[in-house]
Amino acid sequence: MNPHIQAVALEKAYRLLNHGPTVLVSSHHGGVDNVMAAAWACALDFAPPKLTVVLDKQTATRGLIEASGRFVVQVPTVALLELTNRVGNRSLAEEPAKLLDAGVRLLRLAGDALPFVEGCSAWLECRLVPEPHNQAAYDLFIGEVIGAWADDRVFRDGHWHFEEAGPEWRSIHHVAGGHFYAIGEAMQARSE
Amino acid sequence: MNPHIQAVALEKAYRLLNHGPTVLVSSHHGGVDNVMAAAWACALDFAPPKLTVVLDKQTATRGLIEASGRFVVQVPTVALLELTNRVGNRSLAEEPAKLLDAGVRLLRLAGDALPFVEGCSAWLECRLVPEPHNQAAYDLFIGEVIGAWADDRVFRDGHWHFEEAGPEWRSIHHVAGGHFYAIGEAMQARSE
Repeated sequence: MNPHIQAVALEKAYRLLNHGPTVLVSSHHGGVDNVMAAAWACALDFAPPKLTVVLDKQTATRGLIEASGRFVVQVPTVALLELTNRVGNRSLAEEPAKLLDAGVRLLRLAGDALPFVEGCSAWLECRLVPEPHNQAAYDLFIGEVIGAWADDRVFRDGHWHFEEAGPEWRSIHHVAGGHFYAIGEAMQARSE
Repeated sequence: MNPHIQAVALEKAYRLLNHGPTVLVSSHHGGVDNVMAAAWACALDFAPPKLTVVLDKQTATRGLIEASGRFVVQVPTVALLELTNRVGNRSLAEEPAKLLDAGVRLLRLAGDALPFVEGCSAWLECRLVPEPHNQAAYDLFIGEVIGAWADDRVFRDGHWHFEEAGPEWRSIHHVAGGHFYAIGEAMQARSE
């Protein structure tokens, strides 16, 4: 395994999402892997860490997650901008070779078939917390984070280090229509 | 009123939050105004636009929103970094002069008592969509966006223009402990 991929303590896992990056959601069921992009993902709790993610009824990923009860939320980088846009615009149902065409390479960090996208800066392994009303009425899914990892070239000691990593490591933040912003300058508010 | 504050079409309101900024949540009830910071806010739907925001049980804002059924989610800028950190770290219950001390100035864009924070780049007026289970179990609140405005110096024609505005207009993205990143460089994925 890539020696730069290090476990992140669960109590600091929220920091991987707190700055609002667009994420990739990956899942596996019945021999099928899929990856989609989601801008609507958000931390929900510190301990145990939880997150929300919106999964449209049209997505193949939704069915895989409902069937398997597991998924990964991961943070793509500037280097994965085109990959992120492609997996966000194409559906596995219409393009069975979607992942191959988008250049997605998968890792298996959890020690089983759950797929993690190579080249991301951080990964959150989630157990679905079933909430049928939220899922049906709002396409809103809740995950409890049961494992977290980050690439120590950009996140280590519980902190992002974008300013010391190359620009290709920055997180990407989608607005609409393939228009993104990379995360920018670090700023520290005065202590109180 | 500031002539730069322009209405945003509701179908484009999600774009004000899509890149994951830390927001300010403001509310009013019984003659009391309050403003808090929230990193855990996220778009939920396009039309009608909806959003989620996590409001801890300790916050005074939560009570104001439950009582009034209305709130504003707004996007602070680099110029409001210290203000954002202060209203995020202090509670109105303990410091009645919190808003004054933090330098918060309020606008009344909705034509009534609902408070909007001056100097933000965008404002989303929300009607609470009551979901008692989510509120109790997860501190998770859903709002339907019923009005949206932005400052045309940084958001106009349905798009952010951070790259043409001064650096003080950038959105801010909290990680932890007063450590923020400003939003950075614009990037366009190739069309498919």
